[in-house]
Amino acid sequence: MKPPAFFQHASALVESTRIGAGTRIWAFAHVLAGARIGKDCNLGDHTFIEGDAVLGHRVTLKNGVAVWGGVHLADDVFVGPNAVFTNDLLPRSPRFSRVAERYSDPKNWRVPTRVLRGASIGANATIKCGVTIGKFALIGAGSVVTHDVPDHGLVLGVPARAAGWVCECGRRLELDDASRASCRPCALHYQARGGRLRQIP
Amino acid sequence: MKPPAFFQHASALVESTRIGAGTRIWAFAHVLAGARIGKDCNLGDHTFIEGDAVLGHRVTLKNGVAVWGGVHLADDVFVGPNAVFTNDLLPRSPRFSRVAERYSDPKNWRVPTRVLRGASIGANATIKCGVTIGKFALIGAGSVVTHDVPDHGLVLGVPARAAGWVCECGRRLELDDASRASCRPCALHYQARGGRLRQIP
Amino acid sequence: MKPPAFFQHASALVESTRIGAGTRIWAFAHVLAGARIGKDCNLGDHTFIEGDAVLGHRVTLKNGVAVWGGVHLADDVFVGPNAVFTNDLLPRSPRFSRVAERYSDPKNWRVPTRVLRGASIGANATIKCGVTIGKFALIGAGSVVTHDVPDHGLVLGVPARAAGWVCECGRRLELDDASRASCRPCALHYQARGGRLRQIP
Repeated sequence: MKPPAFFQHASALVESTRIGAGTRIWAFAHVLAGARIGKDCNLGDHTFIEGDAVLGHRVTLKNGVAVWGGVHLADDVFVGPNAVFTNDLLPRSPRFSRVAERYSDPKNWRVPTRVLRGASIGANATIKCGVTIGKFALIGAGSVVTHDVPDHGLVLGVPARAAGWVCECGRRLELDDASRASCRPCALHYQARGGRLRQIP
Repeated sequence: MKPPAFFQHASALVESTRIGAGTRIWAFAHVLAGARIGKDCNLGDHTFIEGDAVLGHRVTLKNGVAVWGGVHLADDVFVGPNAVFTNDLLPRSPRFSRVAERYSDPKNWRVPTRVLRGASIGANATIKCGVTIGKFALIGAGSVVTHDVPDHGLVLGVPARAAGWVCECGRRLELDDASRASCRPCALHYQARGGRLRQIP
Repeated sequence: MKPPAFFQHASALVESTRIGAGTRIWAFAHVLAGARIGKDCNLGDHTFIEGDAVLGHRVTLKNGVAVWGGVHLADDVFVGPNAVFTNDLLPRSPRFSRVAERYSDPKNWRVPTRVLRGASIGANATIKCGVTIGKFALIGAGSVVTHDVPDHGLVLGVPARAAGWVCECGRRLELDDASRASCRPCALHYQARGGRLRQIP
């Protein structure tokens, strides 16, 4: 039998069989059975991936991040240290008699979260479940995200509010009078319209 | 000798002998000697329970939660991932010469925190010590609680402010003109008066 | 060969050889090669110290704190549970093709943070990289620090704002009409001028 093509620290616990080549899983991390993880990911110390969580390729999780069932992180997503996902809008202790029935089936309580390609979630940010974080968005450190974030959106604060736009590379974009912006180092051009930012030739 | 009636993951460290039947303690968790934990609790990965901490029955701690000495969590309490308790209002490194004497006795610096029955603390919330969180209260994800929270109170933000009321089940309650509210699925009725909410027949 | 003069819990991973006498490293902690740690420090469970991180003497890290390369904590610093440092202002997943070159050398992206002698960082606070936190400053629990904090400064909120001054011991100082303050228990006297607080005889 071939050895797995991913790296696992001696102290990590890996119970999933669906982990891509080149992925590295560091100390005291725990990947549950059923979790799907792409290629060339990097899961820092003390991370946790629940069954039914999905990570694309080249995802980076810094230390202390837990990815719950129902959370989907697309390719190239970055999650800063101790950033927190959720998957329940009305959390109660599941063995409390009044809610035990609700918790008998994840369909009754689990709310999904999607983080699209290339987005970054800053250190210690909190992501309320049910939101979609757009492609290449950037969530400021310590922010609490309660609403969807558009592609390339920069959001900051508690609750997180729109604070600008960023390039694929993460640099801030300054809109000109025609609501256009360029990132010189990347040679990428953008047009803002109707609360959205799109790449233009 | 009977084996303990609680479950302990092979990687968990459990040094307390006062743990109730049916409780589950997951990977890389650490329960210190002297901690008291009730029945049917669930302590997620990377949790930590200090001596002099008390957990009632059916308490749920999600990953990365530390419960310090002086923190009391009543029955059916839920604590979201990476939510943080404290027990010192003037924290300094205890071996700094100017404060070493203060830290020689917990009576000089330790401040208790109480979370009452059925309350939920959202993901990544921070609880300043000295507060009491009322029965069935709900602390929003990412909030910083600096004052007492009444029974059934919903609080949000930094610092956390009153944002409404919730039923035992966690659903929001809408007060009518007589300051009454009902939760249909639970068939429970409430009356608000003087900043408090009480159950009525 | 002499045994090391520091304490290491059986489950801790210590790869650095530069750790001072009397330092204690607790369960599931991980100290990478190259990290420098002074004497009589206390590193709680689930802490992580990266290579190129520097800790002075008598530093206390509560549980779940990660200290990244580029972060410098001076003597007597306190870091509360789950408080978070950062070292990148434009975080992206380093294996994303558009930014892979930037991440090929830490000089391109790593931004230092300095926490000066005796300062305290409250529980679950977030420290944006690039800032200096002054001597004996106190960062409130759950705050997000985005700017430098002066010596003895108390800051609170998201983003953190000046909220007063504290003594070396952590107690709040009340300025009189001449912008002077004294801490009776410590017999220390201070003068505020130009946004700074200095000790006076």
